[in-house]
Amino acid sequence: MAPSPAKPLALTLGEPAGIGPDITIAAWLKRRELNLPAFYLLGDEALIARRAEALGLALGADLRIAAVSASEAAVAFADALPVVATGEHATAEPGKPDAASAPAALASIRQAVADVREGRAGAVVTNPIAKSVLYRAGFRHPGHTEFLAELASVDGRVPQPVMMLWSPRLAVVPVTIHVSLREALAQLTTELIISTVRIVATELKSRFGIARPRIAISGLNPHAGEDGSLGHEEQTVIAPALKALRNDGIDAKGPLPADTMFHEAARDSYDCAVCMYHDQALIPIKTVAFDDAVNVTLGLPFIRTSPDHGTAFDIAGTGKANPASLIAALKLASRMAATNS
Amino acid sequence: MAPSPAKPLALTLGEPAGIGPDITIAAWLKRRELNLPAFYLLGDEALIARRAEALGLALGADLRIAAVSASEAAVAFADALPVVATGEHATAEPGKPDAASAPAALASIRQAVADVREGRAGAVVTNPIAKSVLYRAGFRHPGHTEFLAELASVDGRVPQPVMMLWSPRLAVVPVTIHVSLREALAQLTTELIISTVRIVATELKSRFGIARPRIAISGLNPHAGEDGSLGHEEQTVIAPALKALRNDGIDAKGPLPADTMFHEAARDSYDCAVCMYHDQALIPIKTVAFDDAVNVTLGLPFIRTSPDHGTAFDIAGTGKANPASLIAALKLASRMAATNS
Repeated sequence: MAPSPAKPLALTLGEPAGIGPDITIAAWLKRRELNLPAFYLLGDEALIARRAEALGLALGADLRIAAVSASEAAVAFADALPVVATGEHATAEPGKPDAASAPAALASIRQAVADVREGRAGAVVTNPIAKSVLYRAGFRHPGHTEFLAELASVDGRVPQPVMMLWSPRLAVVPVTIHVSLREALAQLTTELIISTVRIVATELKSRFGIARPRIAISGLNPHAGEDGSLGHEEQTVIAPALKALRNDGIDAKGPLPADTMFHEAARDSYDCAVCMYHDQALIPIKTVAFDDAVNVTLGLPFIRTSPDHGTAFDIAGTGKANPASLIAALKLASRMAATNS
Repeated sequence: MAPSPAKPLALTLGEPAGIGPDITIAAWLKRRELNLPAFYLLGDEALIARRAEALGLALGADLRIAAVSASEAAVAFADALPVVATGEHATAEPGKPDAASAPAALASIRQAVADVREGRAGAVVTNPIAKSVLYRAGFRHPGHTEFLAELASVDGRVPQPVMMLWSPRLAVVPVTIHVSLREALAQLTTELIISTVRIVATELKSRFGIARPRIAISGLNPHAGEDGSLGHEEQTVIAPALKALRNDGIDAKGPLPADTMFHEAARDSYDCAVCMYHDQALIPIKTVAFDDAVNVTLGLPFIRTSPDHGTAFDIAGTGKANPASLIAALKLASRMAATNS
């Protein structure tokens, strides 16, 4: 395992009525067994205490909570779950989202970004939010990642966030993301492929320590268009992007037939697969790494990882939530922070 | 293993310059080790003899070839590779496709269909063809499967062939197949989903022996449209098909987010996944069953399986071709023929 970074990780609260508090507690309880990097939750001590009780944990015995500042978190982590107050309180019950608790979710994200940008945290790890709940409270961003990009802007310039799904067995990046398939076809351009792959190549070097990243780029159509007989975007949109990327010195190959890119032997031939649309990227990684895939946002001026699942309102507070993806997100953030160059 | 059918399997030659002859010989050599069902090749004894020599096999010692009729094939199979002459000769060298050998490929397919329809064979297993070579020889069908459907017509009615990719770990059916992604969106209709799933449900019962098949139907868009915010086809096209299918008494569930349909636990919940387009179905099966997936054509009045790979001109005659998918296709055809009810 990579050495832990000197700075703790800032973990956001996520949707207060979801499983974020559950998996945060579950991850902290496994800190020794799994040698987890130090993290602190940006949230509300009372909410965590209530959730611990719902989970049948005795406070002070099974779980200790330490109300600390970010600078005290790394030391406190060994013996208690460090919680850094944001000043916003969340009263939502498990499984019962409530717009009144939205300010607590948003304050946690804002404070995490401030902490990492101002040097108090090594990386941001986010618990899942519920967009529909935030919308009711006046949130206006398309999603979590876009909000983070906005918070990451410098001099009014908002960076292009790139979503990577990472696991030890496969890393994928979709060029178009949370839009309908029809809209994905409309959004796909040579420029978008180029800007996405440049960010991927840069950060595989700087944050994953891969000296010469090998990037596999999928076609859009079946059999990558079969020389134009099953579609032309490979020739008109993707091939020009590949040419430009290779001219940049990037080791990019493609357009490859997507169906033969993801078996075990094929995966060994590249470090990241860049795909044209959501399911083309998400189907293979969720097939081979359902429990422990991590969502990584590239393109930001700081490291951000996230578990690759939602709020799971139906099991919040029950003890059934699996912390594996959050644990993988914490470990990867720590590894990236240690690699960061 | 299911009992072998009484009738041998009719195996087509495929593209004479491809790996069909190589994998046919390799499969026959493993007949005892793998307890393979009896099959005969519809082809040209001289071509097989030449290919055996190219592969370094001594004729009469390493490999025996028996020129027989279909009715003699099952008995001959134990000691020799049975070859039933079609009357057409193929002179193409390995890796050097030649339109002059196209009639041999086509005659083999026609004779296999005649044999199975007239009761001499239990099923048709096809070696891969090269459409571009056949087109140069005047072939006018969109592909192998459409040609078989044409040959399967009764009173001028051509059946709807349905492509299933089958492996012990996952079976998938794409509703739209070898068309561009843009064209797949245009072709996708409620009626096409219904007619496809009806054929799947019927044949999972009659040919796979599943009393009450469980069919999982994917959405088209990311997250199955997320209640309409990422596309509407789930509501306008797919949901009406599900309603009609359930009214038929078919156990169909969906539309499901495609990315979470294919991990191991999810696969246990259904017998076949019906997907909206090629890569949505082919990515997961080629990820989990790259070497041993079998292409099965449902909807025909006979059983047809095929290895799930192409002609591989680059390795024909070299001994590098892997017969695993052909072997899986032979075993599955035999099992289906024994189940057929």
